[in-house]
Amino acid sequence: MADARFHRTAGPFTLQEIAAAAGGQPGENADVARRYSGIATLTEAGPDQVSFLDNRRYVPAFSESRAGACIVHPRFASRAPAGMALVLCEDPYRGYARVAAKFHPEPLRPHGIHPAAQVDPGARLGPDPAIEAGVVIEADVQLGARCWIGANSVIRAGVIIGDDARIDAHVSVSHATIGHRVRLFPGVRIGQDGFGYVLGANGHLKVPQLGRVVIGDDVEIGANTAVDRGSLTDTSIGDGTVIDNLVQIGHNVRIGRCCVIAGLTGISGSCQLGDFVILGGQVGIAGHLRLGDGAQAAAQSGIHRDVPAGEMVGGTPAIPMREFRRLVGALRRLGRRSPAAGAEE
Amino acid sequence: MADARFHRTAGPFTLQEIAAAAGGQPGENADVARRYSGIATLTEAGPDQVSFLDNRRYVPAFSESRAGACIVHPRFASRAPAGMALVLCEDPYRGYARVAAKFHPEPLRPHGIHPAAQVDPGARLGPDPAIEAGVVIEADVQLGARCWIGANSVIRAGVIIGDDARIDAHVSVSHATIGHRVRLFPGVRIGQDGFGYVLGANGHLKVPQLGRVVIGDDVEIGANTAVDRGSLTDTSIGDGTVIDNLVQIGHNVRIGRCCVIAGLTGISGSCQLGDFVILGGQVGIAGHLRLGDGAQAAAQSGIHRDVPAGEMVGGTPAIPMREFRRLVGALRRLGRRSPAAGAEE
Amino acid sequence: MADARFHRTAGPFTLQEIAAAAGGQPGENADVARRYSGIATLTEAGPDQVSFLDNRRYVPAFSESRAGACIVHPRFASRAPAGMALVLCEDPYRGYARVAAKFHPEPLRPHGIHPAAQVDPGARLGPDPAIEAGVVIEADVQLGARCWIGANSVIRAGVIIGDDARIDAHVSVSHATIGHRVRLFPGVRIGQDGFGYVLGANGHLKVPQLGRVVIGDDVEIGANTAVDRGSLTDTSIGDGTVIDNLVQIGHNVRIGRCCVIAGLTGISGSCQLGDFVILGGQVGIAGHLRLGDGAQAAAQSGIHRDVPAGEMVGGTPAIPMREFRRLVGALRRLGRRSPAAGAEE
Repeated sequence: MADARFHRTAGPFTLQEIAAAAGGQPGENADVARRYSGIATLTEAGPDQVSFLDNRRYVPAFSESRAGACIVHPRFASRAPAGMALVLCEDPYRGYARVAAKFHPEPLRPHGIHPAAQVDPGARLGPDPAIEAGVVIEADVQLGARCWIGANSVIRAGVIIGDDARIDAHVSVSHATIGHRVRLFPGVRIGQDGFGYVLGANGHLKVPQLGRVVIGDDVEIGANTAVDRGSLTDTSIGDGTVIDNLVQIGHNVRIGRCCVIAGLTGISGSCQLGDFVILGGQVGIAGHLRLGDGAQAAAQSGIHRDVPAGEMVGGTPAIPMREFRRLVGALRRLGRRSPAAGAEE
Repeated sequence: MADARFHRTAGPFTLQEIAAAAGGQPGENADVARRYSGIATLTEAGPDQVSFLDNRRYVPAFSESRAGACIVHPRFASRAPAGMALVLCEDPYRGYARVAAKFHPEPLRPHGIHPAAQVDPGARLGPDPAIEAGVVIEADVQLGARCWIGANSVIRAGVIIGDDARIDAHVSVSHATIGHRVRLFPGVRIGQDGFGYVLGANGHLKVPQLGRVVIGDDVEIGANTAVDRGSLTDTSIGDGTVIDNLVQIGHNVRIGRCCVIAGLTGISGSCQLGDFVILGGQVGIAGHLRLGDGAQAAAQSGIHRDVPAGEMVGGTPAIPMREFRRLVGALRRLGRRSPAAGAEE
Repeated sequence: MADARFHRTAGPFTLQEIAAAAGGQPGENADVARRYSGIATLTEAGPDQVSFLDNRRYVPAFSESRAGACIVHPRFASRAPAGMALVLCEDPYRGYARVAAKFHPEPLRPHGIHPAAQVDPGARLGPDPAIEAGVVIEADVQLGARCWIGANSVIRAGVIIGDDARIDAHVSVSHATIGHRVRLFPGVRIGQDGFGYVLGANGHLKVPQLGRVVIGDDVEIGANTAVDRGSLTDTSIGDGTVIDNLVQIGHNVRIGRCCVIAGLTGISGSCQLGDFVILGGQVGIAGHLRLGDGAQAAAQSGIHRDVPAGEMVGGTPAIPMREFRRLVGALRRLGRRSPAAGAEE
């Protein structure tokens, strides 16, 4: 249940309104005019709250829930407790997300430029900006309409950002063009030098990093994630891609549309990811590799070869998931049967 | 030996005072009135300094040390060089920590609100605050007594922080309630959105993140670590837990009391850790798992199943440590005997 | 091709000037007086641009390139397309780096102290400082000549930094002495407490962290990397070492000269690395280990033993690379032949 101290709230809403928001149908005999005041988990929800079931493992909790209403797939309707109003949805998690957004709208944006922000006179800001305290915006920056730049962020010279960007506190951006509706979470680093040196026995020579970072629309980048600019071409991130916290993206990496990249993953320089690629947490990808559209990698995979479109890999070095599962089974047997490591070492 | 340029110093102290601070006893025939001026390692300490021995591997260095005094377990007393005064301690590392704190007290806190800080008039600050330059404190924030907020940190609306917090530079906190005596190191990110989306073939729908972060008393969180807020319930960290740098803690994670979590570890959403859980560096834990009280994971473990209380695991996927040690031995033999990889590939 | 919006440009330059910068020789019959306007990749370069070939895999692109000139090893000269002027170089990547720096000089440094910076009157700044907005410089800080401190960075009391440092936005530095020509990228954390506690059943006792961080000359440290100060001795990083983004360096670690450490790597407390050590991404090193001069570790290695000078290791636990390659081959065969994991589990 959302704490009103931190989250805006709306409502109450009728079951009819909730079903419409969810893209679902009220269950048989449900009182569509009854009003609900908020959302909560199956175990915490009370009679005037709405909950949801999207995972088979929570069916017992569903059957015992005191929630007044629940968003649920029709196949589980018969497991509902007596008196619970249902909202039947083919995709109950999507339905829940929409209902949650109805009860708890996005926070209100501030308006204007805080007097303790430093905006270069040569920067061009679109209509209705929100520039918080301590922000630094350098010369020739272009911001679209309704940009929201969080406290103490630094936008370096020449950066271009589209409409409705929401950049949180302590973000730094340089050498970048960024699309519409992009969200950057606190501590994101965009556009610093890539890690490029000519190694030598008398010391390493820095290679000038002369590219940019190009980010599409509707991209989200998590806290303290770093995206280096390209060395001569660009580092790019396609529309709709979402990236978790503490991810490292090297120079010249090209990421397609709607990829999902979990925390602490590292993508080495010049890799190319297609669209809808999914990477688990702590995945590592060696340089110059290609992952085709829809490729997936299990958490902690270490990828050393190209991954064809649609293939799922796991392990280090990463192998097709089917082989990896077999290997894991074989290793478990080996661990159980082998003499202790000390025996030979 | 601590550099007075960076660390406050006190003393000199007599051996009697040092033994009392250490919770130990002066060794036989030691001159308890003799004064010592500071602490140093066994190899660096001189006649007017105190050292300590807490690791068997350093017994030779102990036997050759020029330290005037040494905090040591009674079992090693006979190995001391002639003329070294001893402080006998059952737990010499703990004794050392206390003596170190006696010679080098915590830094002095500044007082007051720097004129270049931005404190919303609706924030409530406890007595004797220290708010450094560039700090932003938004509306309805509540800070306890003697809070110390480091330069350029940002405390978002509604956040509650207990007494004697010490928050270093560049920290961002939102959607959070935080206990007493908590330390957050530079670049910590607390309370941003968790990584939650409904995946879909036409793009991913963001799931509103409507929970909080709840942090207990005496928690320490390392530099650039990120703790996401819950999606509908809370992310929580229990009293006395300590977390290293660059750790990722996902939404809805519940961490018990007095856990120890080393650097670059990632804990996926909705995991539950009991009390006194210890995780090595670069550990990864898949979502929705439970680790019982006192569970331990070796560095780089990849945990894919619940871990019972008291069990230690290692490897990826993680298995009981005894099995993992056997497996490692078997793999070493395999690596030595197998034909080169190229032979088949 | 560098975007003039973000990168300074110089030129055009004659082939003679380019060859001189590259440390190479104009190819036979090349028109050394012809001028070129910039640099670009083999596939993007046009007739008035210079490209380079440093990787055998791009020879076909070289043979089809429209670049007017190309920096190339003499052995590939015969593969050049008709009409391409060559610059023959024994080390074409090094030659390219120098030519790139000639066409695109480092950005111009600002001058002076921004009125929105907070510089303690007791700090000593060398000649011609560049202190950006929101910077906090505390008492007794010493900065060398021409130091450039990026927006909102925080330099704590007593820190010493040499000449020509370039510290980007949002960096925090405490308890540290730093050499000449050092670059710290956005979000770097230097000098915070190491992760040291006396563990106990009733809670963990913090061990005072009384050392420093000592950084040599010509060191580069990547975005959001953290370097903890020593516990009683120092954490140190030798001249010419380069460190990527999101790396964790624990207390008392000693890193030699000209090491190369890739992203998301973690080095536990009290490790000692010699000179010219190379660590891939996501490597983990357990505490108190030694890696000799020139040791190398493949990405994602987990190092649990000392590594002799010159040895390359891979895997977790890390083993000599030759054994690791054999092991990988054996495991691939095992994964292909074994029954599915479910069969026994």
